[in-house]
Amino acid sequence: MADPLFGPELRLMLADDDAAGLKALCEDLHPATVAEALEDFSPQEVWKIITPASIRTQAAIFEYLPPTRQVTMVEADRAQVGQLLTKMSHDDRVDLLRRLPVKTKEAVLRLVDEADRKDMATLFEYGENTVGALMTTDYAWLPPTMSAAEAIDQLRQQAPDRETIYYVYVLDEAVRRPDGGVSPRRLLGVLSLRDLILAPRHAIVRDIMSDELVSLAFTDEASVAADLLARYDFLAVPVVDASGGLLGIITHDDVIDIIQNEATEDMQRQAAVGPIEGSFLDASFGNVWYNRAKWLALLFLLQMLTINVMRHYEGELEKVIFLMALVPLCLSVGGNAGSQAATLVTRALALEQITVKDWFRVLRRELLMGLALAATLGVLAVLRTQFLTADATHVKLGDYGFPFASLVWQVTFSVAGICLCGTLVGTMLPIACQAVGVDPALTSSPFVATLSDVLGIVIFFNVANWFFF
Amino acid sequence: MADPLFGPELRLMLADDDAAGLKALCEDLHPATVAEALEDFSPQEVWKIITPASIRTQAAIFEYLPPTRQVTMVEADRAQVGQLLTKMSHDDRVDLLRRLPVKTKEAVLRLVDEADRKDMATLFEYGENTVGALMTTDYAWLPPTMSAAEAIDQLRQQAPDRETIYYVYVLDEAVRRPDGGVSPRRLLGVLSLRDLILAPRHAIVRDIMSDELVSLAFTDEASVAADLLARYDFLAVPVVDASGGLLGIITHDDVIDIIQNEATEDMQRQAAVGPIEGSFLDASFGNVWYNRAKWLALLFLLQMLTINVMRHYEGELEKVIFLMALVPLCLSVGGNAGSQAATLVTRALALEQITVKDWFRVLRRELLMGLALAATLGVLAVLRTQFLTADATHVKLGDYGFPFASLVWQVTFSVAGICLCGTLVGTMLPIACQAVGVDPALTSSPFVATLSDVLGIVIFFNVANWFFF
Repeated sequence: MADPLFGPELRLMLADDDAAGLKALCEDLHPATVAEALEDFSPQEVWKIITPASIRTQAAIFEYLPPTRQVTMVEADRAQVGQLLTKMSHDDRVDLLRRLPVKTKEAVLRLVDEADRKDMATLFEYGENTVGALMTTDYAWLPPTMSAAEAIDQLRQQAPDRETIYYVYVLDEAVRRPDGGVSPRRLLGVLSLRDLILAPRHAIVRDIMSDELVSLAFTDEASVAADLLARYDFLAVPVVDASGGLLGIITHDDVIDIIQNEATEDMQRQAAVGPIEGSFLDASFGNVWYNRAKWLALLFLLQMLTINVMRHYEGELEKVIFLMALVPLCLSVGGNAGSQAATLVTRALALEQITVKDWFRVLRRELLMGLALAATLGVLAVLRTQFLTADATHVKLGDYGFPFASLVWQVTFSVAGICLCGTLVGTMLPIACQAVGVDPALTSSPFVATLSDVLGIVIFFNVANWFFF
Repeated sequence: MADPLFGPELRLMLADDDAAGLKALCEDLHPATVAEALEDFSPQEVWKIITPASIRTQAAIFEYLPPTRQVTMVEADRAQVGQLLTKMSHDDRVDLLRRLPVKTKEAVLRLVDEADRKDMATLFEYGENTVGALMTTDYAWLPPTMSAAEAIDQLRQQAPDRETIYYVYVLDEAVRRPDGGVSPRRLLGVLSLRDLILAPRHAIVRDIMSDELVSLAFTDEASVAADLLARYDFLAVPVVDASGGLLGIITHDDVIDIIQNEATEDMQRQAAVGPIEGSFLDASFGNVWYNRAKWLALLFLLQMLTINVMRHYEGELEKVIFLMALVPLCLSVGGNAGSQAATLVTRALALEQITVKDWFRVLRRELLMGLALAATLGVLAVLRTQFLTADATHVKLGDYGFPFASLVWQVTFSVAGICLCGTLVGTMLPIACQAVGVDPALTSSPFVATLSDVLGIVIFFNVANWFFF
């Protein structure tokens, strides 16, 4: 939502061509606040509003604009973007380039100087959703031989251009490779600004740094980075190549996005949607269709088993057509109870609250839970059929020669049995997936519901067998 | 999972009573690493392992133990905990106290000195899941009149006991209230350590601090804090009382937990589970039963509508019993397509990718999507019924006097209609909830499936009406 406070003020300044006012406003407020206030302006207007500010401020505001907005901004005025890119944080600018159409990207890259272009090209090469693609290369660093006082002076100079100076990386000498290129400097240790400030002025960096290195490989998945930062409460984690050379860092603000994205993907999988790239309205129609249709089609094919099962009982069915009205009700119970169990177990696995080796504890608990839930619904089923069934049904049952109690027990036992069955399927399927190395999130709720429908029909007609056939 | 590297080493040292070795190991490794390695030890063993280390290190390791582990540790040796609590971060120790049984809590509190007890009592009063309950009171602060050089010296002294010194809060003079108590000092501004280091030595704190204050009220919900930190990429946000007095801060590491918890709750709601407190195996059975049974019961009652709808078509039903075998298949499509749509829309609302005012864009898109998905499944339905239907069915259809094509179209049109209907219900229900101020997460997938079952039966028999009656 746009900030209600600054929008009108901005519009006024824009109408008055008040460059000084615009500059002051952009520079004084937090860039996120400015970006929010810009939401209702056209790309051309946004450029006019931010241009009076310094390039650094422009870049900061630009970084906080929503991704799709950034792309339209670039397309509205490519020339402006060249300068901006040099001041944007290195991970954010690569993200932006990734989203630009190829032609725009090439045009924009021509406006950037050699060194920046090379840096972007390197980050660009890493696979999507890897640590390499998310990291930033503007980290603060020190040689191991400096004193604490020199180090603080050195950081003062680096501070304006670095994503963070609260963690400083201690790097080895650069080594020239036989082919003439330079390998990334090897990571020796890490030093927090807190420890640097606490250290005596003459202490040597090598002696005060921590060499217990927690680092990521550039090929690691983004989720590994998120787990690591979450577990250690770090502000940043270094990313290294195979020989320990520092390539970049992943910072705490990236982790929030990673965690949100992971949760979104897990939720989508739970609802049988192949993970969808991009936000709801921006995602491409074809891609969303494919990721929904493939699961719906698969579930549809599986659910066809219900036809075979129903056909199997067709003979009995014709004798007791009046039971058919109860089938959708009884089947739904299994899907609902199964969705609950599957979601709880899958999430517990994802958060590592349980592991495969806990399967027996989980089974025992969910067996009891299934029984308790089945009993609850069983009572409701007795009440419903005993007291709310129309006289017509009593008459009809009589016509067929069945006592009314048969109907009550049919519903009650089916519902209880199907509830228990759904719970157990929903519980064990994700654990079984995990055990054989398949992502448990693939056992979506609709998948559990489909399986429990097939089993539910079997239960329903077997119960009917006792009471009616 | 326990760290495979340090476990055996620890066991050996424990057997040898090697206090010096244990101390070195605990002090040298990151406390999170030590906590992980301790997973397979009994509470008594854990106490023996960490006791040789300094109280500060013990507290740090203790903070990284899982919550339930912390409780069993306290119950294994209450006396040890008193000292530990004084060195634990203020938010973590209140969390611990919250989880202890009342008697243990009182016993532990008797071991803590007056000032700490008062601090804990204050944090304890804030409502659960509010910013007040999550914040920590060990922030770094400065008076506005100091020079930058003095400020850095001051921070050096505060650093060891503060959760973070990267954001420093600038506070007014303390004011004595008429009743003799002291109000919290008023928050004047915030200064990052980065800016402090960049400032000239003689600059005055008041002049270099930022007074554009983004702060939280102690009554705000935890999710508000998470949104704020995520939006501004802050490391911490101050929490103030009604008159602007600083009460505490919320730090970046709290936010990750908040976001994970929120995602878990949203997933549970999506599966029709009332949010469950605590991790999967620790949550109380009664509480879990209640939060699952209440939704299952409600859905069961709603689903009973299917009986009435089925009964309504009973006359027709008897004429075309062979169609009954198709009902579970056709109905399942609506539930599946509806779950997908409901999950996508609910998550998009939660992440503010869409708002209620986008309803028409969402509807238009999902209408097209529903049609595309319906067409996909329709084609599958034609293929299934055209080519995979047993000869017996052909014969039976002939007996009843219906052409085989009727069956094909029955399945195809029902499936397509129900798919479209499920998609639209799943799309519009969460948006409608949001519009009238109800949490859209309450429109769970099972709820959408139930509604679409009822509508699905109507569609199924109306289609049957065209082709068979």
